[in-house]
Amino acid sequence: MRPSSVKLVEMGPRDGLQNEPAVSLEDRIALVDALSQTGLRHIEAGSFVSPKWVPQMADSEQLFSRISRHPGVCYSALTPNMKGFEQAMMAEVDTVAVFAAASEGFSQHNINCSVAESLHRFEPVLQAAQQRGVPVRGYVSCTLGCPYDGTVAPAKVAQVAQALYEMGCYEISLGDTIGRGTPDKAVAMVEAVASRVPISALALHFHDTYGQALANVAACLELGVATVDASVAGLGGCPYAPGASGNLASEDLLYMLDGLGIHHGVDLAKLIAAGDEICRRLGRPNGSKVALARLSQCQDKER
Amino acid sequence: MRPSSVKLVEMGPRDGLQNEPAVSLEDRIALVDALSQTGLRHIEAGSFVSPKWVPQMADSEQLFSRISRHPGVCYSALTPNMKGFEQAMMAEVDTVAVFAAASEGFSQHNINCSVAESLHRFEPVLQAAQQRGVPVRGYVSCTLGCPYDGTVAPAKVAQVAQALYEMGCYEISLGDTIGRGTPDKAVAMVEAVASRVPISALALHFHDTYGQALANVAACLELGVATVDASVAGLGGCPYAPGASGNLASEDLLYMLDGLGIHHGVDLAKLIAAGDEICRRLGRPNGSKVALARLSQCQDKER
Repeated sequence: MRPSSVKLVEMGPRDGLQNEPAVSLEDRIALVDALSQTGLRHIEAGSFVSPKWVPQMADSEQLFSRISRHPGVCYSALTPNMKGFEQAMMAEVDTVAVFAAASEGFSQHNINCSVAESLHRFEPVLQAAQQRGVPVRGYVSCTLGCPYDGTVAPAKVAQVAQALYEMGCYEISLGDTIGRGTPDKAVAMVEAVASRVPISALALHFHDTYGQALANVAACLELGVATVDASVAGLGGCPYAPGASGNLASEDLLYMLDGLGIHHGVDLAKLIAAGDEICRRLGRPNGSKVALARLSQCQDKER
Repeated sequence: MRPSSVKLVEMGPRDGLQNEPAVSLEDRIALVDALSQTGLRHIEAGSFVSPKWVPQMADSEQLFSRISRHPGVCYSALTPNMKGFEQAMMAEVDTVAVFAAASEGFSQHNINCSVAESLHRFEPVLQAAQQRGVPVRGYVSCTLGCPYDGTVAPAKVAQVAQALYEMGCYEISLGDTIGRGTPDKAVAMVEAVASRVPISALALHFHDTYGQALANVAACLELGVATVDASVAGLGGCPYAPGASGNLASEDLLYMLDGLGIHHGVDLAKLIAAGDEICRRLGRPNGSKVALARLSQCQDKER
């Protein structure tokens, strides 16, 4: 059931940088441009949300106008409402994304409404996107635990994922927002969702806050999931655990895929270089162990 | 085939600290004493090798005389030769350990002899240990790759593991010394060894240099391996990749075992505290993601 190839959806410029303390537009553009040269097919490049909420993602319309778009690469952005969607369309974003939580507590704290209300709010975005032929990706957060509600039932995740799918999202990305999952729980959650949404329309978006993300991905690949979100250099953090890790590092994922003989089409050396550059610009340590090993004065033979 | 309980063999005071730049005897003793209070049943506390080779492990006889031994805890030490073994016996070490490489290149570079010669050199240690009724643990290094030879054949690992087992080692710890393994390769290696040595006598000792260790452990647990080596706070590094990660962090392993419902008997909070203390003393970052998450001002509910 394991896929022969996996598509990496690169989250660094959006889910990564939005959790970094200070980021310039120039850094963001440089990162997207570097990532565009690596063979990646999907880069989440920005977010059209209020700069009051996420100042790191301000000026995303400028970013989209200034990046050097590479043929064959999909550049996506978060658009939580019609205002954001219209800005994204002006900026010629290829794919937009909406997000809902699998837990009521997170939805209330994060966007001040129930899960059902949040889905209702996205309806105009999905309708407008369908009219314009723009694909919409759906994120479900807190699929393996919530900072407010604790445990989240797989059936609830499946319900929210199904709702987003039926509203027209082409792909549902299942987020372990606080990285609390372990392999069996991740598999049980994905199995529950896969009973409602085709597995070919599912993506894994597991955070590494507790060091479990890669083991969880490995377990879920066995179910046939073929799309995985990750962030170059492990960019990002966990707003619920300051100082802790956020996204799974793309490099570490690709290293595993290479070892498993699963095709991904990304040039790992170029990806490591892109991650190294943004970490230098941000003055932060590189969160990819593969990058640290390869960038060190490693004198061992790779093969 | 997954075990219902896993024994963690704590490597921090030996394989961890021997790769730290500067460590005092007091720090080493404090770490062993803190670990002794966590429920761990096996702590590798020191090493009787020449201080010229490994200055961090000098004065291990003093360490063994000054630690507060906890009933039910096995305190082991590396003893590569008869001199070390005799020192270990004077120091009342519970279990001794010997090591051999699965690759000729590593054996030649590391101890200046062939693998067969290294096994021959251990014979007096194993004979003396048997006469005194002291258990001997055997380490096999480079089981998933060698910094000099590159790929290492699973059959070669199996051959060395079998030799150590037949010489009298009660347990064979299979080391991915440079962390180059990925899940399928780890499983293939363990399966090859398990065709020669009972799986109940095998331990996993996977380094996290490329971020793969936990995924590799998860995969190999499915084979029934029930002993795993790890290092509190991910202490240690990789001498072949300066700045890169070394041992798998014990806390991250235990977190996964908890999630999988596998018993281990260790108090995770106490282990995190022990790791935090030694990291403060060494002035190094904590290499456990679980520790970083738990020690942060994390306001989320754990359950």
